[in-house]
Amino acid sequence: MTSVFIHPKALVEADNIGSGTSVWAFAHIMAGVRIGKNCNIGDHCFVETGAVVGDNCTIKNGNMLWEGITLEDGVFVGPGVLFTNDRHPRSARLAQVHDRYSAKSNWLLATQIGRGAALGAGAIILAGVAIGEYATVGAGAVVTRSVPSYALVKGNPAAIGGWVCQCGQTLGFRGSSATCRNCGLRFAKKGSLVSAKG
Amino acid sequence: MTSVFIHPKALVEADNIGSGTSVWAFAHIMAGVRIGKNCNIGDHCFVETGAVVGDNCTIKNGNMLWEGITLEDGVFVGPGVLFTNDRHPRSARLAQVHDRYSAKSNWLLATQIGRGAALGAGAIILAGVAIGEYATVGAGAVVTRSVPSYALVKGNPAAIGGWVCQCGQTLGFRGSSATCRNCGLRFAKKGSLVSAKG
Amino acid sequence: MTSVFIHPKALVEADNIGSGTSVWAFAHIMAGVRIGKNCNIGDHCFVETGAVVGDNCTIKNGNMLWEGITLEDGVFVGPGVLFTNDRHPRSARLAQVHDRYSAKSNWLLATQIGRGAALGAGAIILAGVAIGEYATVGAGAVVTRSVPSYALVKGNPAAIGGWVCQCGQTLGFRGSSATCRNCGLRFAKKGSLVSAKG
Repeated sequence: MTSVFIHPKALVEADNIGSGTSVWAFAHIMAGVRIGKNCNIGDHCFVETGAVVGDNCTIKNGNMLWEGITLEDGVFVGPGVLFTNDRHPRSARLAQVHDRYSAKSNWLLATQIGRGAALGAGAIILAGVAIGEYATVGAGAVVTRSVPSYALVKGNPAAIGGWVCQCGQTLGFRGSSATCRNCGLRFAKKGSLVSAKG
Repeated sequence: MTSVFIHPKALVEADNIGSGTSVWAFAHIMAGVRIGKNCNIGDHCFVETGAVVGDNCTIKNGNMLWEGITLEDGVFVGPGVLFTNDRHPRSARLAQVHDRYSAKSNWLLATQIGRGAALGAGAIILAGVAIGEYATVGAGAVVTRSVPSYALVKGNPAAIGGWVCQCGQTLGFRGSSATCRNCGLRFAKKGSLVSAKG
Repeated sequence: MTSVFIHPKALVEADNIGSGTSVWAFAHIMAGVRIGKNCNIGDHCFVETGAVVGDNCTIKNGNMLWEGITLEDGVFVGPGVLFTNDRHPRSARLAQVHDRYSAKSNWLLATQIGRGAALGAGAIILAGVAIGEYATVGAGAVVTRSVPSYALVKGNPAAIGGWVCQCGQTLGFRGSSATCRNCGLRFAKKGSLVSAKG
């Protein structure tokens, strides 16, 4: 863990944190978590055993990454985003759900956030969805279904409202083609499948 | 307070916490709070003097329970749920509201969460509502009115979108009857009044 | 900083905090922040260098005030409100956005919250908007555009749903005039421009 910065008010129990990563005040990283290189993890975050964070991720303050959540490289998690890992939660201490919570395979759903995606402030990501690479989830969106790569989704429940470049710029498609007016990257679209050209 | 677990980074000023309950890092429980047995209170929670928590509740991280909030037994509070206790908030330090905030009876509304209910991630519960027993509030729902027992509500503002069993399973009513396909519990419905049979 | 209360579990690096202000447990105020007199800053708040807070503000728990956010005097920030300062966020560590994040002028948008305004629990305020004085943002509203003074907005995205007095009471306009039935203050309306008389 060369050159990892851990704020003196943070609580870090993990030993698998990449170089160049910073963990800020009142954040708590549990044992067994794997965090990549060059990430920034803001104040008051919580990362649970079983969560996985790639390289170059920016995790703003107040986020909680549960077991089952994987962030690929370069993901942005805005302030106060909420992940979940159970679609039918009850207090596990209720007698009626004792069997369900006796094995993780009964309730735990994995959530995957693709490379370079951005999750806006207060977005809520339901358990079991996949967010495609470079997709953007608008602030306050409630994501109940998987999101294709490069899509912009917003609303409650979230719906596709446009498309975005790897650099974050909104894309204007003419037919099946678009060129980013900011960085010049070109895209092709077939249905809801958008891909970058070359 | 036999066998209460208090994380060394938590701040617990209350002395009325039931046995088997755990309080995790960076959580703050104020003096005078009453918390039942066998609860779990996650990191970064705040429980204010005047809040009441029953037995067997699961309170995920980052929750704030204000004066006026009561959780009955077996409630699940997902991550980042927001309770409130004032329908017309202003900064109490404004001259224009000095009178209003001079007495709690002018502004404080109680909120009751019924036995076994589940509040999904980021749900917002407006002051003064009651959530019926075993109801489920979907992630990101903004609850502006009371919710009947066994109802599933979602959206902003929240509306009834279905019914759920005590075990969390969605119920499919045929006419006025339903049987849970998971646990077999049977239900009767009259209008928006659902009850479990025997 | 005469008579500033700083909870022993808070982390305050700023030295420009007005008298009568309290900062509660697990809150973090960064160096260079300016906070006025007689404010209350709840547990688990984070105030970033560059944020400005006026006098008599009530900032409930779990709020994060970023660079670019200004609260005028007498603002109420409910629990878990989310501010933002970038409309097209990506992880600044991505190669594709290296240029954009090399200068704040490329991405940082200021947000102004007017005197006496109230932001309900879990409201989300998009970067670059202005909230007029004494406006009220309903709990869970996602504010994507500026809000006029005295307006009440709610929903996702937020829309005007009524008008409120300085004291928080809902106003009923008859034609272009309204008198608050709580405090007697009188108002005139022209289009979406509401002003208090005398």
